[in-house]
Amino acid sequence: MALRIRSIEWKENKVIIVNQLKLPTEIEYIECTTPERVVEAIKNMEIRGAPAIGAAAAYALALAAIRSNAKSRKEFLKEIYEVAEKLKSTRPTAINLFWAINRVLKSAERAGESIEKIVMTIVDEAKKIAEEDIRANKLIGKHGAKLIEDGDCILTHCNTGSLATVDYGTALGIIRAAVEEGKKIHVYVTETRPKLQGARLTALELKYENIPVTVICDGMVGYIMQEELVNKVFVGADRILRMGHVINKIGTYTIAVLAKYHNIPFYVAAPTSTFDLKNSLDQIKIEERSPEEVAFCGNMRVVPEGVNIFNPAFDVTPPQLITAIITEKGILETPLDRAIAKMFNL
Amino acid sequence: MALRIRSIEWKENKVIIVNQLKLPTEIEYIECTTPERVVEAIKNMEIRGAPAIGAAAAYALALAAIRSNAKSRKEFLKEIYEVAEKLKSTRPTAINLFWAINRVLKSAERAGESIEKIVMTIVDEAKKIAEEDIRANKLIGKHGAKLIEDGDCILTHCNTGSLATVDYGTALGIIRAAVEEGKKIHVYVTETRPKLQGARLTALELKYENIPVTVICDGMVGYIMQEELVNKVFVGADRILRMGHVINKIGTYTIAVLAKYHNIPFYVAAPTSTFDLKNSLDQIKIEERSPEEVAFCGNMRVVPEGVNIFNPAFDVTPPQLITAIITEKGILETPLDRAIAKMFNL
Repeated sequence: MALRIRSIEWKENKVIIVNQLKLPTEIEYIECTTPERVVEAIKNMEIRGAPAIGAAAAYALALAAIRSNAKSRKEFLKEIYEVAEKLKSTRPTAINLFWAINRVLKSAERAGESIEKIVMTIVDEAKKIAEEDIRANKLIGKHGAKLIEDGDCILTHCNTGSLATVDYGTALGIIRAAVEEGKKIHVYVTETRPKLQGARLTALELKYENIPVTVICDGMVGYIMQEELVNKVFVGADRILRMGHVINKIGTYTIAVLAKYHNIPFYVAAPTSTFDLKNSLDQIKIEERSPEEVAFCGNMRVVPEGVNIFNPAFDVTPPQLITAIITEKGILETPLDRAIAKMFNL
Repeated sequence: MALRIRSIEWKENKVIIVNQLKLPTEIEYIECTTPERVVEAIKNMEIRGAPAIGAAAAYALALAAIRSNAKSRKEFLKEIYEVAEKLKSTRPTAINLFWAINRVLKSAERAGESIEKIVMTIVDEAKKIAEEDIRANKLIGKHGAKLIEDGDCILTHCNTGSLATVDYGTALGIIRAAVEEGKKIHVYVTETRPKLQGARLTALELKYENIPVTVICDGMVGYIMQEELVNKVFVGADRILRMGHVINKIGTYTIAVLAKYHNIPFYVAAPTSTFDLKNSLDQIKIEERSPEEVAFCGNMRVVPEGVNIFNPAFDVTPPQLITAIITEKGILETPLDRAIAKMFNL
């Protein structure tokens, strides 16, 4: 049986996360006993990946709930809402974070007057969010695996595996499912600067499962497409808009343009919790992270001091570059805006 | 007066090179007294950049010449040819290396019978190669600066500055020349994984000359083009073929495809010594370098042990993606094959 590192778990009223900053050289588990520790973990990317940070935020609210000494419903909910605000301020782009927080808050609002009951409801809702994510990923895998043929060479970007989700993965879940079906595939993964999630995390997950994998640098994508070393692209998403725009890890758009130029199908895998049907493109905030992430490789300074660095964490891939989006409810085909309207009954 | 780091110099019968592996945090000069030390420096990229390694190879032959104890012309030339073979085996892709070696060998063959005379000829030819490179770069700068307008935002890749050449630079020479003419420009430079020449070297050179520069990761190129943060691309070349194919640092082709998609002019700058009019595309060897270059960032392992890594050092940009090539003899415009034929009287 293949070893799989679980990104996040609720255990004995604690949130256990694996410290993704230390992978692949060290497997360190962080026991979060306070919501503040989870806030910190999301901010500094000890945990990352849109579905995983959604679950982490829900569990952080569960921690806040069980630790509360509030005497009234009003006081209790005030505390929970304060933690929710802290969680919402961690990272602006992935919508699963806001989706999970709002879902937990809504369940709390509806849980009646008893604080004890509200606490139980919040903990249950957080657990449900995590469990549903795993189920959604397995369904995404099942649907998406149909798009993979024996012998395919697949390019993926960043990490969309069990570490990016609660378990199993989105784009990497599809790759897992195809392999479980007996298909022989080879995966190329971009190292994904600046945080190197492809090199550090995706390569590790695939190695654990003995799925053949080759790491390349981000600038090599054009070359491997030109050399016909890959024939399909699968990536994840941090937010998908009503018209089919996909916001995902920086570098995704670059790969999508290259895939279009080389006539290579470009697939996006994400649960329906990643869809943002309300906001339009100009309302989306692309997170800019610290220049230090680019300035240093490990402890080595690679950009001279005093030089400007631009470090956007995400980019936007427009629908015309996307072949299809795979969700737990099925595959959305082009035109994406119509397929999205149909799936969500808009 | 701006500070400029000279990549290579001949001084008191030694070859002085700046150790580019230690930049930007440390400026270390290596005194090469033997041709073998220069061979090593080219191999491990203490010196790199097509024109710079051409000059380094020529100077290595000069070192071999002055150190020879050969008693006959035949014996002497045998020694020189042996060193030439070692030099040719260092790096396969940049043609300037082979061009410089062959030029020195030819001068030696023609220098008559006296060993003393041949030694002088070799040293003079090596110096001439270095001096001509500087002159060529200044002319490239002069021609290329015409393509730059006040207010331009220019993307460049890898390092094509004084460190990649003997002095001044090719693509970066054009940027220097435009700034010397009083044009205000902003430069974006890709960090250029795996060896980070953009982050470490280009950013350093531009910082020294107070030319505004912003470093990005290689995967961010699509995003900054989509956001219209750059309006022109200038890169260098390691080898340019008869039909206009440009072989340059890995990542160049990725940028060229993105530039085409965004209707951004894509310029290549190189001296005529970079042109290979004999070989066709299928005869070109793309150097693959050690996986360790990708596996480690500084001393931090970022790819799990036992995972495959693909590390091609160059890629090929076809002529249809290139707006123009700037040489010391003038600007080659499309169709490039015709312009090349005219310039070289083919």
